[in-house]
Amino acid sequence: MSAYDELMAHARETQALAQVAGRLGWDQETMMPRAAAPQRAEEMAALEGVLHARRTDPRVAEWLERAEAPDAAGAAQLRLIRRAHARATKVPARLAAELARVTSRAQGIWAEARAAEDPGAFLPVLSEVVALRREEGAALAEGGDVYDALLQDYEPGTTAAELEAMFAALRPRLAELRAAALDRPAPPALSGRFDPAVQHALAQELAQAFGYDLSRGRIDTAVHPFSSGSGLDVRITTRTDPADPFNCLYSTIHETGHAAYEQNIDAAYLLTPMGEGASMGVHESQSRLYENQLGRSRAFTGWLFRQMRARFGDIGIADEEAFYAAVNRVHRGFIRTEADELQYNLHVLLRFDLERALIAGDLAAGDLEAAWNDRFAADFGYAPERPSDGLLQDVHWSVGLFGYFPTYTLGNLYAGCLHAALRRDLPDLDDRLAAGDPSPATEWLRARVQRHGGLMEPRALIEQATGEAPSEVPLLAYLEEKFGRLYRL
Amino acid sequence: MSAYDELMAHARETQALAQVAGRLGWDQETMMPRAAAPQRAEEMAALEGVLHARRTDPRVAEWLERAEAPDAAGAAQLRLIRRAHARATKVPARLAAELARVTSRAQGIWAEARAAEDPGAFLPVLSEVVALRREEGAALAEGGDVYDALLQDYEPGTTAAELEAMFAALRPRLAELRAAALDRPAPPALSGRFDPAVQHALAQELAQAFGYDLSRGRIDTAVHPFSSGSGLDVRITTRTDPADPFNCLYSTIHETGHAAYEQNIDAAYLLTPMGEGASMGVHESQSRLYENQLGRSRAFTGWLFRQMRARFGDIGIADEEAFYAAVNRVHRGFIRTEADELQYNLHVLLRFDLERALIAGDLAAGDLEAAWNDRFAADFGYAPERPSDGLLQDVHWSVGLFGYFPTYTLGNLYAGCLHAALRRDLPDLDDRLAAGDPSPATEWLRARVQRHGGLMEPRALIEQATGEAPSEVPLLAYLEEKFGRLYRL
Repeated sequence: MSAYDELMAHARETQALAQVAGRLGWDQETMMPRAAAPQRAEEMAALEGVLHARRTDPRVAEWLERAEAPDAAGAAQLRLIRRAHARATKVPARLAAELARVTSRAQGIWAEARAAEDPGAFLPVLSEVVALRREEGAALAEGGDVYDALLQDYEPGTTAAELEAMFAALRPRLAELRAAALDRPAPPALSGRFDPAVQHALAQELAQAFGYDLSRGRIDTAVHPFSSGSGLDVRITTRTDPADPFNCLYSTIHETGHAAYEQNIDAAYLLTPMGEGASMGVHESQSRLYENQLGRSRAFTGWLFRQMRARFGDIGIADEEAFYAAVNRVHRGFIRTEADELQYNLHVLLRFDLERALIAGDLAAGDLEAAWNDRFAADFGYAPERPSDGLLQDVHWSVGLFGYFPTYTLGNLYAGCLHAALRRDLPDLDDRLAAGDPSPATEWLRARVQRHGGLMEPRALIEQATGEAPSEVPLLAYLEEKFGRLYRL
Repeated sequence: MSAYDELMAHARETQALAQVAGRLGWDQETMMPRAAAPQRAEEMAALEGVLHARRTDPRVAEWLERAEAPDAAGAAQLRLIRRAHARATKVPARLAAELARVTSRAQGIWAEARAAEDPGAFLPVLSEVVALRREEGAALAEGGDVYDALLQDYEPGTTAAELEAMFAALRPRLAELRAAALDRPAPPALSGRFDPAVQHALAQELAQAFGYDLSRGRIDTAVHPFSSGSGLDVRITTRTDPADPFNCLYSTIHETGHAAYEQNIDAAYLLTPMGEGASMGVHESQSRLYENQLGRSRAFTGWLFRQMRARFGDIGIADEEAFYAAVNRVHRGFIRTEADELQYNLHVLLRFDLERALIAGDLAAGDLEAAWNDRFAADFGYAPERPSDGLLQDVHWSVGLFGYFPTYTLGNLYAGCLHAALRRDLPDLDDRLAAGDPSPATEWLRARVQRHGGLMEPRALIEQATGEAPSEVPLLAYLEEKFGRLYRL
C-alpha cells in the first residue's frame, strides 16, 4: 500500500469511530436512561482517548511526509488530515486533560449559577476556562494571534480581522433597523393550542419537503433541537410547545438544513475527512437559508398558512399577509436563541466582541457582567433584568467555546450571499415556494455547496458557488428590503 | 501505579468501549435508519478493531505476569482478564478476519435460503463456517477437545461431557412427558384482540414488578426481544402481536431476568471484567426462572389473569385455573423459540448433538437436513414439513455460534436448581406471587447469584447459591410435578 492509501485507511477508521462518538452524543440527548450518566461519561472518555491516540499517532506524520495525493480530492483529504494531526499534536496532553476536567466542572457550575441568578458563582471558573483556552490558543498559534488560532477549530482559514470588517458594517444598520421596526405597531400573533402530535407530523413533512431523507435519518424529541451524524446516518431532533408551533416547525427546517447538507455530500467521500460539512459557518449558512430566506419567505409562508389552517383550524390569524408578518415578528427580548432574523446577529456580535476581549486579556471575567449589560443596552435600547437573560444565558463559554459564536453570524452572511446568487439563477423560485416546494433552491445548494463536503476551504467554497467574494452586502440588502416592507419603514 | 492497577485501568477502558459496541448493537435493532447499514458495518468493524487491539495488547501479558491481586475480587478480575487475553491472542488475525468475513456472508445466505426454503443454497457456506470454527477451536484447544474449547466462550469451565451426563438423563423423560401431555385434550386458549399499547403498558409494569430499574434502562420495540448493556445502562426490547399478548408479556419477563441480573451486579464491579453476568448459562437461568418458574406459576398467573381481565375485558377464558392451563399449554410445533416449557429443551438437545457431530467431523453439512429431520421425528413424533421449520429456523450456526445452544438448556437446569433452593428458603413465596409480587424470589436471586457478577465460575456460583452440585434432577421433578398436575398424567 502507498503512504496515501495507508493514511486514508487509517483516517477512514478514525472517521468511523468519530461517527460512533457522535451517535453516543445523540443517544445521550434522546434515549439514555437518566441514571446512566456516570457510566456514559466513562464510555465517552474511553472513546475520546482512542480518537486522540489515533489523531496523534506518529505514523500519521510519517505517512503525511510521504503521501502523494492522486487528485484534487486527495489533496483536500491530505489538507484536512494534516490540520487535524497538527491540531492534536500541538496541545500538550496535560493541557487537554485539564481543559476537559475544568470545562466539565464549569458546565455544572454554569447551570447552577444560571438557576440561582448568581453570576458571582460562575465567574471564577470562567476565569479558569479562559486562562486554559488562552494557553491552548497560544500553543496552537505558535506566535500568531491566539483568538485566530481558536477560530480555526470552527472556521478554518478565517481570521477575526476578516470577520470584523464585515461585522462592523452590519452592526449599526441592524441596530437602526430594529429600533425602527419596534417603533411600529406590533404585528398579529398566533393564538390557540396546537396539538404536539400534529406539529410533529407537519414537521416531518416539512423536513422531507426540504430534502431530508428519512431512510438515512430520523426525527426524535430533545430538550434542544440538534442535528448529528454524517453520511448514511444523520439524525435530527425537535421539540414541541403547544402554544408555539413555530418553535417546532422552524427549528425542524433549520436542523434539516444541517442534516441535508451532511446527507448530500458526495458518496465518494463517505467516512473520510472530506465527508463532513466544510465549517460551522458554512453549516449555519445552510440551516439559516433553509429556515429564513426560504422557510420564512412570503411565498412559502403562504403555503404554510394554508397547511396550518387545514390541520389546526382557527389559528387566530386571518390571511397570508398577516401570517407572514406573524412568522417574521420583530419583538423585544433578551435571549439569542429566541431572537428574530433581524436582531439575531446583534446578539452574536456582542458575544464576538466580548470573547475577543476575554481572550486578548483586555476584559477580566469579573468585569464581564457590566460589559455585557452596557453593550446590550447600547444595541437593544434596554438592559437585561436578570443574569439568566444576560451573560448566563448561553452554555458556550462554560465549555470553552471561544471562536464559535462568530460562525453563527458568518453563516448568516454566507446565507445572504448564497440566497442572492440562487435567486438570480432561479427567477421562478417563488412560484414553487408558494406551492410548498423549496426543491429548486435546495437542489441548487446541493449542487453548488453541499456535495463538495470538505473539498474547498469555506470562503473559497462560497466564492465558487456565488461567483463573488463573501460580504455583508447581500444579507443587509435582504433584511432591509424584507423588514422595510413588513414594517413600512 | 502497580501492575495490577495499570491492568485494571486498561481493562476498565476496554469494558467501557465494549459497552459502546453493545449500545451500537442496540441502536441497530431499534433506532437505526434502514439505509444506514453499510456505514454502521464500518463503524462496528472499526470499534471491534480497537477492542481486539486492546485485548491482544502485549502490555496486558506483561502486567498479568507481574500483577498481584489485592483480594478475592481482584483474583477473579485477573482470571477473567487472563482468559480474554489468551482467547484473543491464540487465534491468528488472519483466521479472525476470515471468520468475520465468512459469517457475515453466511448470515445473508441463510436468510435468503430460509425465505426460499432452499437448504442446498445454505449448506455449502455452512460447511465453510464449520471448517473455520473447527480451525479456531483447534487453535484455542491447543491439543484438547475442540468443541470444549468453543464452549468456553459461552460457558467457561464447563465441558461437553459434563453437559452430556445431565442432558442424557433429561431427554427420554421429556420425550415421554410431551407424548403423554399431547395425548390429553388441549387446554383452553386466549381469544380476542389485545391492544398493543395496553400490552406495552402491562409489560412495563411486569418488568418493574420483577425488579427492572427503568431509571437505568428502557423498553423499546424490536423484531426479536433482547437485553443489552451492563451496569447503569441495561436496555430491553419487546414486540407485540395483537392476537397473542403472552408473546409480549412473557418475553418481557424473560428479558427482565437478563436485565435485572446485569443491573444487580455489585456497583463496585462497574465497568470491570467482573461487572457482567458469569456466563450465558447463568444468564439464561435468571431469565428462564423469572419467566417460567415464577411468571408461569399457578400463583402468579392467578394475579395476571385478574390484571388481563381488568385491562382487556373478556379474554375468552373463564377462571384462574383455565388461564394457568392456557399459559402453560403444551402444543405441537417445530420452532424452538415458540416452544413451551416442557418441549423447549428437546429442541436444544437436538442442536447440541448435531453441532457436536459437525464440529467433530462426524457429520457433514450436506447430511445435516436428513440428520435433523430423523432426530426431530424421534423426539417429537413428527417431521418438519419445510426447511424453515427445520434446520433453517435458527440464525445461530450461520454466524458460527457453535457451543452456544447447550447454554440454553444448562440455564434451565440451573434455574431448576435455584428454584428448588429458593422455594426451600421462601415457604410463603406463593402468597406474594398471588399478589403479583415476585420480589422475595428476585431478591433471593440478587443476593445469592446476581450481585456476584463474575466473581465465581458458573458451576461454583450455582453450587454456593443452592448448597448442592448442579444436576438435572430438580428441573425434571419440577416439570413432572407441574405438567403431571396440569395434564392429569
